[in-house]
Formats: sequence, structure tokens, C-alpha cells
Amino acid sequence: MDYVKNTWYVAGWSSEFNDELRRVTVIEENIVMFRNSSAQVIAMEDRCPHRMLPLSKGKLIGDDIQCGYHGMTFNCEGKCVRIPGQSNVPRSARVTTYAIHEVNNIVWIWMGDPERANINDVFTMPEFNDPDWHAHQGEALHLKAHYMNVAENLVDPAHVSFVHPTTLGNASSENVPVEVSTAGDEIVAWRWIRDSPPIGFFKNFGTFTGNVDRWHYYYLHLPCTAVIDFGSADTSLALGEEERDRGFRIFALHFITPVNADYSIDRWMHLRNTAVGDEGVSKKMDEMFKVAFNEDKEILEAIQLEENRPQRRRPIRIAIDKGPTVYRKRIRELVEAEAVNDLGDPIDSTFVHHS
Amino acid sequence: MDYVKNTWYVAGWSSEFNDELRRVTVIEENIVMFRNSSAQVIAMEDRCPHRMLPLSKGKLIGDDIQCGYHGMTFNCEGKCVRIPGQSNVPRSARVTTYAIHEVNNIVWIWMGDPERANINDVFTMPEFNDPDWHAHQGEALHLKAHYMNVAENLVDPAHVSFVHPTTLGNASSENVPVEVSTAGDEIVAWRWIRDSPPIGFFKNFGTFTGNVDRWHYYYLHLPCTAVIDFGSADTSLALGEEERDRGFRIFALHFITPVNADYSIDRWMHLRNTAVGDEGVSKKMDEMFKVAFNEDKEILEAIQLEENRPQRRRPIRIAIDKGPTVYRKRIRELVEAEAVNDLGDPIDSTFVHHS
Amino acid sequence: MDYVKNTWYVAGWSSEFNDELRRVTVIEENIVMFRNSSAQVIAMEDRCPHRMLPLSKGKLIGDDIQCGYHGMTFNCEGKCVRIPGQSNVPRSARVTTYAIHEVNNIVWIWMGDPERANINDVFTMPEFNDPDWHAHQGEALHLKAHYMNVAENLVDPAHVSFVHPTTLGNASSENVPVEVSTAGDEIVAWRWIRDSPPIGFFKNFGTFTGNVDRWHYYYLHLPCTAVIDFGSADTSLALGEEERDRGFRIFALHFITPVNADYSIDRWMHLRNTAVGDEGVSKKMDEMFKVAFNEDKEILEAIQLEENRPQRRRPIRIAIDKGPTVYRKRIRELVEAEAVNDLGDPIDSTFVHHS
Repeated sequence: MDYVKNTWYVAGWSSEFNDELRRVTVIEENIVMFRNSSAQVIAMEDRCPHRMLPLSKGKLIGDDIQCGYHGMTFNCEGKCVRIPGQSNVPRSARVTTYAIHEVNNIVWIWMGDPERANINDVFTMPEFNDPDWHAHQGEALHLKAHYMNVAENLVDPAHVSFVHPTTLGNASSENVPVEVSTAGDEIVAWRWIRDSPPIGFFKNFGTFTGNVDRWHYYYLHLPCTAVIDFGSADTSLALGEEERDRGFRIFALHFITPVNADYSIDRWMHLRNTAVGDEGVSKKMDEMFKVAFNEDKEILEAIQLEENRPQRRRPIRIAIDKGPTVYRKRIRELVEAEAVNDLGDPIDSTFVHHS
Repeated sequence: MDYVKNTWYVAGWSSEFNDELRRVTVIEENIVMFRNSSAQVIAMEDRCPHRMLPLSKGKLIGDDIQCGYHGMTFNCEGKCVRIPGQSNVPRSARVTTYAIHEVNNIVWIWMGDPERANINDVFTMPEFNDPDWHAHQGEALHLKAHYMNVAENLVDPAHVSFVHPTTLGNASSENVPVEVSTAGDEIVAWRWIRDSPPIGFFKNFGTFTGNVDRWHYYYLHLPCTAVIDFGSADTSLALGEEERDRGFRIFALHFITPVNADYSIDRWMHLRNTAVGDEGVSKKMDEMFKVAFNEDKEILEAIQLEENRPQRRRPIRIAIDKGPTVYRKRIRELVEAEAVNDLGDPIDSTFVHHS
Repeated sequence: MDYVKNTWYVAGWSSEFNDELRRVTVIEENIVMFRNSSAQVIAMEDRCPHRMLPLSKGKLIGDDIQCGYHGMTFNCEGKCVRIPGQSNVPRSARVTTYAIHEVNNIVWIWMGDPERANINDVFTMPEFNDPDWHAHQGEALHLKAHYMNVAENLVDPAHVSFVHPTTLGNASSENVPVEVSTAGDEIVAWRWIRDSPPIGFFKNFGTFTGNVDRWHYYYLHLPCTAVIDFGSADTSLALGEEERDRGFRIFALHFITPVNADYSIDRWMHLRNTAVGDEGVSKKMDEMFKVAFNEDKEILEAIQLEENRPQRRRPIRIAIDKGPTVYRKRIRELVEAEAVNDLGDPIDSTFVHHS
């Protein structure tokens, strides 16, 4: 059980919730979710306390869930309000509820101590509300892989040359070292590839005619949010590191939901500073991202299978492992701190571009 | 291993057995069964004592089973009568056989101490041989569920309002309390719903024009036989509780075969006091029963999955749990008594309508 | 883990290896294999020592394997020769390699101490290089069965009467006792069936008009190679036991590759002294062999399932078990000897026809 509990996880895009009961699993907890008559997303333990039938097998009566076996009915606070055939309802007849925060068309769920839930800790970034930027939600990539393996892939610019040679990387970047900063709340790994041919992605969406300067910044925000800032600009522009907005710039966002030790969901979306309002471009980008993310999926699921088999040798550590190593260490510390009920300062979730 | 052994279980309908070898599994024991040249059903351990090939993979030579690997041959008493390539047959070359009793077109198998097998303990009821009643065998419902969960559903009149709202229940019964009697050998749970619209089942098969009085009596006979006496009569008839034969009356019988801790088979059939001899009505009723029993299956399999997951809270007990609770307690006592090899009085299996 | 390690196993037919990376699993070890630019088959541990991605998910760069995740590159000796993005390569960055010997169009792999690998121990027989004999490779039969169960079936002439009644056996042989010799390095079980109708196989491929003398010699070569010498001749020829070459004679070879405790691969082929050069005959024989070997597969997989269930009685031993019993005992001794690191004399693998 190496999950951080006192944190906000993504339960789904806003569009995934309506007046149908839906089971969602986060850090091994089954949760029934729906949108009530006030358009609020409700989340509660997906198990009737009587005979354990998932409440998601029942039905909504107004804003209450009626269990599908004997009709025990629970309101949005998780309190049983009816037991058919008897007049008294014991106080112990209740289920756990979860704090929810919906923002930027994303539904976040708090899995820890309800007292600590603070909506100011929910991840956001200013570009969500900037008219010069276009936000587009992609899909949910299901991976038979531990969330930490998924996350470490998202603080690892080096893999794109080998895993995504036709989309997000190419041979020019193979030998360019990666820089890593672990000083702030985020772990950041980045590199620039100057004066080289554009990658497949920008061959399709940029308008570059010659060589470009290309950057990849991977921001990993504990425990499960990654922002990949990548883009390109004509080499002739001689872009400075902090002038990325002058180029063709994309933030690829990944929200990882740990389901269990062998299963994670990666909801991905992007923000871009070009083709604002053009959903045709969004769709085409989705296609390219899907090619790339399925390449990750193949790698990550193969690794998961190996990790579940006996290990006969100590793994080699190489230079690019700094980001992943720090990530795992910090997760471990957070989990241990929660185990002794002493979380210390909450994670600050305001996204600040690395400078 | 919470199975009662010294009891008769249903191995199948009579129509399921012929001169082909068939594997049947009861309380985790694999059994090969067939009908011999005297039309008797034979049952023996489905594993050759030589190299463990299931005998059901072999073939019948007359009334003997010849193993499909090296031809070792076993007679109906389980004794090896031939080992090809050698003249002597060791006395230890034998397999276990099981007592079988076939009655009412049902094949019962005794899973316990052969000395205790008594065919007078096999379940029956007088309506099987009453010309005013029509008996019709349905199908075998396979459930990924523990037999006790299946059984408790069959001493639970309350669930029909919520699980079977279009067939066996409707909203009128939701709040009618259930009465329970555990005094005799059977556990009985029942209720009457007076002066209310007929349920879906009787809309199709009754000839009711107005409101009806409806009853549901659930008799659970340990360990694995349930009789559900349900029916309706015009409210104007003002039927007394013991005048059910004057109404449209059905006995739905369920014979549960525990296969293993996660798997059971429920063979269901009915006896009815109407449309005697009309198999068209039987077929139509089957269709309606199948809708209803698949609703049970969905509930019971979902519960089984939950029971196999960690449990974080003590289950709530409610009024209608009396029947199931007594059932589980009695099964536990029977299993414990067998463990100390002191069964006490055998279960009396004569079905007596509750009065 | 009851595998002999210091021995040569078949990794595949020669035709299975080319310039594509291929995962092969032998005694629970995953191995990546390919044919390099010198046409040599290379075999190494199929797991990158960095993040454990199977190297078979990477790609060949010349004769080196480049890992598909971060491009770490390994040469044919298993040494890492490149880590993209850094100049130094730690000496510990390496994977295990395996000795390979390719002969008779078969690729053998040595799974034990590399110091002990001796290509003179690889199985061969003179008929591979005899122009009067035709060699034909069949297919790879995958079985969900332990290799010792597969092997014991190949030192067991008695089963053909019951498992293969239409192809390799018939009723004439049912009661003919089996002779067994365990004196040499091989375990040999055999019998002659004189003056009886030809089996299905020879009805198709022989030219017999009347009764024949038929022989089955099963040579089991530890740990995993079986040679079945079977054939027939007109009874009028009154063939002596050592005159088998005068008849229609076939060596059916089986090379078992233990994959894990529940899975084995049996690569089968034959050598024959008739229809030399006629691949049409080979194809027809393959069809008949496939029928027979799938009959074995059904038996062996059913037994495996039983072996994985609880066992309530001590198995019976019968006369024909001598070969299998000695085989299991010798395997156990070899495994134990390896466990104490004292193998004694290596297995001599020269095939000598039994006389």
C-alpha cells in the first residue's frame, strides 16, 4: 500500500459524471459517483453496509442511492435514510463519503483525512483561463502498471528518442544530457535540442521549413500530476530558455489515478498557444498523442510484468534516473509520514513554470 | 470447507444422465457419472488412481469405465477389474463410489459417510405425485457465488421488491414486514400483501382483473433446498392463510449444488395448480423465471466479489436478516458436528407446508 | 525448481531464428535470441539491467541490442557498450549470455555453469547425416504440463493402444507386456507386436497387404530428449529384433523444452528410411502425427490440472511404470547433485540404438 492518501486525485473528466451511478476505483477504494440535482458530483463508498452489494448496482431516487438488494437508501452525506420493512434506522447504517472539487472540467477526489481537504491544494495553472491558450481534454489511458512507473516515465525526457522516434522524439536528441532540478515542490527534468530537424509531431502541426530549437520540460508534481512543456521554434529566432511562449508551445498534462498495485489510469489533455479554438487540430493531435502514449503503455506494461517476476540482479542506475529516484524517495517519505500520522506541510499545488 | 457432507445434494436432473461419461463437481469433489445398462445412475471418483487422469476422459466398456491413458478398467463398484499388460490387479486399485437416489426425475448424491445414507431423507413433496399439480423442470443457473449466499437469497422475501420489480415483486410490498419462523426443521420467512395490484408474473399468467391478495412463503430446507410458495387470489375471495390452494399457486423449487467456495449451481423447477399439462405455459413461465433469476445472479456475483475483498466495517444487521442468520448458524453447527464425527439426528427432509 | 541446469536444451529449430529479436523461455529464464551478421545464434538475458524492460522489446543495431526504453546497448557478449546521454558505462552494466550450439538444424542452449558447456554432449544420431535417411522437422507442441509428465509419456509404449487407437496404436497391442532397460545412460522401453494388423499410421504410409510385425522402442535420454523407434514389416519376413532397418522404420524425435512448472514445449520431428526426399509424404505424416500428439496433449493437460489439486490417495504403481519411475528418480538425483554443486560425470549424449 504505497499510496499517498492526503492528496487530491483525479476521479475523471467532468464529462464522465451525470445522473447515472458510476463505480470509480482510486488507491484500491471502490467509490460510487454521480452528479446530483444541484449538478454537484457526489462520491461515496461503493458498498452497502448491509450485504455489501455495490451501491453502483442500485439506483438513484432523487439524490439518494437505493441499494439494489433490499432498498436501503443513502443520502449524499452517506447516511441511511430508509430501511424498507422496518421503521428504525440504526445510526451505524452509513457509508463513507469523499470530498470532491471540480475545476477546469476536471473532478478531483480527496482520499485522506477529510479535515485536511483543502481545495486550494488542487492543481491548476493559469493557462486554463487564458484566452490565448486552448485547452483540450484527451482520453483515459488504462495501463497495467504501477502508478510510480507511469509517473517516472513522465519526468524522463530521455525516453522519447527511443520510445517515440516518430512522434515526440527523434535521433537528434539521443545523446543530449538531461538536466534535473529537485529544489522546489516539483521535480523538473529538461533539455534543449538546438538546431536540429523538427520531430514528427511538429512536422504535422508546425510550419517549420528548416531546423528548429526544441525543448522538453517535464514537471512532476507529487504524487500524480505531470506537466510536459514541449515546443519548437525556428533556430533563426535564437530563442532564450524563458522565451518559450514565442515558439509553438504545448503543455501535455497527465493526471495519473492509481487504481491498484498493477493498474493505473492516465488521463491526458493539452494546453497550446496555437490554433486556439480549432478542434480539428485538437483531434489530429489526439491521434498523434495516442500513438505515442500507446508506445509508453507497451513499455510500462512489459516492465510491470518483469517487476512481478523474481529479480536476480541489482538494477543499474544511470544519469537520467535522478528525477525518478527523487520522486520515489519523496513518495516513500510521504507514505511513511502518513503512517505515523504526521504529514507535515501539505503539498503546494500551484504550478509554476520552471525558470 | 464449510460444507455439510452427510446429506443428499442434487447432482442433476434425470435427463442429464445417459451412457456418456459426465464430470460433476459437488462440494469440491470431482465425480464421474453415467447411466448404466440397467438404467441406474452410477457415480464414482473422477480420477484414475494410477496417473490421475479423470476417468471422464476415458470410455465406457459395457458398464465399466476404461481409463483413457493406459486402459485400467473400473466396474460400477469402483473396483479395478483390468490392468492391460499385466495379469494381477492389486486390491488397492479402486476408486470411491457414491450412493445415488433418483426420484421425481431428480438425481441425488450422498457426499458423506456411506453408512449414513438413507433414501428416506431425500427431499420430496406430495405435489410431485398429485394429478392436480403440474411439475416442470427448468434449467441450471450457474452462479459465481458461495452456496450460502445463494441460499440466504431464498429465505428472503424482502428482496423481490427491489431485485425483481417487473416479475416477482412490485412496489406494493416494499414496506410490508417479513415474518420468520425457525421453530421446525425448515426456516420459513413469509408475508402477505393484501389488496394490491398483481405482480408482473401474474399479469402474464393469472386472469386477475382487479387487486389481489398475494403471498410469498420461503421455506429453506438445510442445507440446500428451497421451496418458494407464492401465489395470488382475487382480493374479493378474502383468502385465509391456509386456503392458498384456492388461489393461483406455484411452488418454485431451488436445489443448490455447492461446487466450490466461489461457485454454485441452482437447478430450479416449479409445481403449479393451474394449466396442468400445458407445456406452453411452462415455457412462458421459464422465460419469466429466467429474467428474475438472472437478476439474482447479478446481485449474488457482485456480492461474492465484495466478500473476497478486504472488509473495513462490520456489516449492519436488519430485521429481515433473521432467516439468513439462523440458516448460517445451523450450517455452521452441522459442519462442526461432522468435524467431531457426531452428527446427531439426521436432517428430516419431509416437506411440510408451513401452517 | 526441479530442473537440471547443466545440460543442453532445445531453444528452437534453426528456422526459428533470424535478425528479429525473439523471446524464448527455458526453465523459467527469459532469454532474447537472434541470429547475428555472422549467422551465429546469440542468446542473452531478456531484461535490461536498468529498468528491466525485456531487451526483446528493443531493436538490433548491427549485432548489438538497443533497449527500447532509454537506448542502453548491449553487444553479443552481454556487455553494455552505450548509455545515451552519458559518456561512462559502468562495468556492472551487463547481462548474462548463454552458450549456443547449432547442429542438425536444431539450436541448443546450455542453461548451467558456462564452464561445463561441452558441445560434444549435444544430442545427435548418425541417421541425421545418412543419405538413406530422410529428416523432417515437424512443429512445436505447446502443453500446459510439467516436462516430466511429458517425458514419461515418451518412455511409455503402453499408452498408444488407448490414447492413439487410430494412429499409432490399435487393440492388438493392449495386452502385450512392455520390456524396460535402465542399464545404460538411456531408459529404454519396448515391445514387439507380432503377426497383427498394421496400425493406422502404416495403413496410410506402408504398402502392407496382410499382417505385420510391429515394434515400438522408446529411448528416453535425460533430461528431455526422446527417440521413438517404431516400424513394421510383413510378418512373412520374420524380422529379427536387430533387423529393423529391413522394415519400414521411423525415428520420431521429441525435444522437450521445460518452460515452467506448468508449461512445456515439445518440438517433434522424424527420421525415416523410406520416401527419402519426398516432402509430400512428410506433410502427410505431419498431419497424422498432429492428430496423435494432440491426443497426448489432452491427456497430459488433464493430468496437470489434477496434479495441481489436492491428492487424497496414494497413486497406484503398475508394471509399465518402471521407465517413468527410474526417469523421475534420475532427474531428482541430477537436480540434487547440482544443488550441492557436485554433478559428477556429465550426461553422455551419443544416441546408441538399443540392442
